Amino acid sequence: MRETQHVIVQEVGFRDGLQSICRVMCTEAKKKWIAATYDAGVRHMEVTSFVPPKRLPQLADATEIVDFAIRHPDLTVTALAPNLRGAENALKAGVHRIVAPISVSEKHSLANVRKTPDEMIDEFRRMRELRDSDPSWSGTRVVAGLSTVFGCTYQGYIPERDVRDIVDKVIQAGADAIALGDTTGHATPTHVRRLLEMLLPRAEDKVPSLHLHDTRGLALANAVVALDHGIREFDASLAGLGGCPHAPGATGNVATEDLVYLLHSMGFETGIDLEAMLRARDVLAEHLPGEPLYGYISRPGVLHDSLLPLHSSRGLPQ
Amino acid sequence: MRETQHVIVQEVGFRDGLQSICRVMCTEAKKKWIAATYDAGVRHMEVTSFVPPKRLPQLADATEIVDFAIRHPDLTVTALAPNLRGAENALKAGVHRIVAPISVSEKHSLANVRKTPDEMIDEFRRMRELRDSDPSWSGTRVVAGLSTVFGCTYQGYIPERDVRDIVDKVIQAGADAIALGDTTGHATPTHVRRLLEMLLPRAEDKVPSLHLHDTRGLALANAVVALDHGIREFDASLAGLGGCPHAPGATGNVATEDLVYLLHSMGFETGIDLEAMLRARDVLAEHLPGEPLYGYISRPGVLHDSLLPLHSSRGLPQ
Repeated sequence: MRETQHVIVQEVGFRDGLQSICRVMCTEAKKKWIAATYDAGVRHMEVTSFVPPKRLPQLADATEIVDFAIRHPDLTVTALAPNLRGAENALKAGVHRIVAPISVSEKHSLANVRKTPDEMIDEFRRMRELRDSDPSWSGTRVVAGLSTVFGCTYQGYIPERDVRDIVDKVIQAGADAIALGDTTGHATPTHVRRLLEMLLPRAEDKVPSLHLHDTRGLALANAVVALDHGIREFDASLAGLGGCPHAPGATGNVATEDLVYLLHSMGFETGIDLEAMLRARDVLAEHLPGEPLYGYISRPGVLHDSLLPLHSSRGLPQ
Repeated sequence: MRETQHVIVQEVGFRDGLQSICRVMCTEAKKKWIAATYDAGVRHMEVTSFVPPKRLPQLADATEIVDFAIRHPDLTVTALAPNLRGAENALKAGVHRIVAPISVSEKHSLANVRKTPDEMIDEFRRMRELRDSDPSWSGTRVVAGLSTVFGCTYQGYIPERDVRDIVDKVIQAGADAIALGDTTGHATPTHVRRLLEMLLPRAEDKVPSLHLHDTRGLALANAVVALDHGIREFDASLAGLGGCPHAPGATGNVATEDLVYLLHSMGFETGIDLEAMLRARDVLAEHLPGEPLYGYISRPGVLHDSLLPLHSSRGLPQ
């Protein structure tokens, strides 16, 4: 696994970013952002969440957004669904992947989906059964999106055995894949290493992807450790859009452009044109005026000249 | 070496931070900052630079600052000296370490000290000879502070063989220690790994310390790689104060508080009270009003509860 040099970067700003800010981005702007992201080479996007519009008016256009996204060739379109009803709507809309948010933290789970982790795993099993009930949905994968894996604003430290138990349960419930979410930016390099060493052998081929937040500035350091352990799939949000309503002062997801710069600098391929990604920030600046845009690499710019020689076939000078 | 769990964090904001901003911090405020940093447990500080006041009015009080700093028990006081004259003044002032800035990049060297790298190495040799000429100075170490080691705003990519050659030369010139500086934030995890793998065997016991800038958001990721290679000494600047006049839009040094948080989260000891370091930011806020203060951890705060269980003797749950 460590030889694989391609890394999947899933843009989640349309969902995680937009749901975390107060204002509503209009549907046309979202489409423009999705198109710009697609043009930059991104082929994995979590575009929305199927939740009651009353709860998240920012994502009330879920069906229309999915309908737009799935018209793009080779684009893997993911949507979040917190319950069976949402999953059904997502399946009907034609998504390729449904992510169910399953908190390891009971308190966070109750606050987020009004269910305990075990109740949410039951709901997840019903989602998987629903998917299996109709052959036309057989291509849709159901993903267990574990949240608060590294800690929780309500509960603090999350015991690793709790994460291990939930991983076992979601595999038993039929998860096609597992994503590990550092929902509130608690993760540290040591924690990432410890958890991956414990979970990867148990998760078999369902290698989890990592969803990192940069609340404490450690997202890229955590990514380096994860890459070292063979993780080849990450969530990220353009300009670090978002944040966490339950973590005051926190910045949001790791910025897509910074993660891509890191990956390219390490010789990984993403299929993403970093300059085009930086231009996509203009869509945010135009349609979310005043919203803080994070990220480092957009300011000093990309250093092509200093990256290339590091990955030349010549190797180290002797 | 990898078992050593103590990491030295040298605060360089007094020198690298203050020389990079336009305004002048008054001497009393600097003393307050040094005292607050000392009270927070920091025992290594680069407090000033012995340069002509006309060139750097921000550091015109070098002698007075060193005189103040060396009165603190167990504090290792370092000053930069770009030439023999500066080194002499630093020796007379009673510093414990003199750092000579030696650029690997010829263009940067000429811009910075008006000497080629080789001319600067000659100057460095004269500094070392001066130190050796008077037994009362025998306790003062002369450090080769290599800059633009990972890249240069003027020259872009810096060939690794150039760094290797300069390391060989400064060892030959009698360097007591070597510091590797990512002056303009070009370093990437891959580059750090490659360079350390090449240099550490050559540098023998003069294990270089690392001076990282966070221009492109990679400073902490680079630090993780360096720690993995046994580096146990880092420079940092409170609130990431500084920047680089030759890298537009760049933020400055890696923020001390973020680096310390990373180190503690990984189980390293620094002797530094992180909360006290965060309080030291108030000195900057008071005496440099309007100056941008960077750093992540000051906003969401430190997570003691989620760090402790990761380093308990219990280890991983089975």
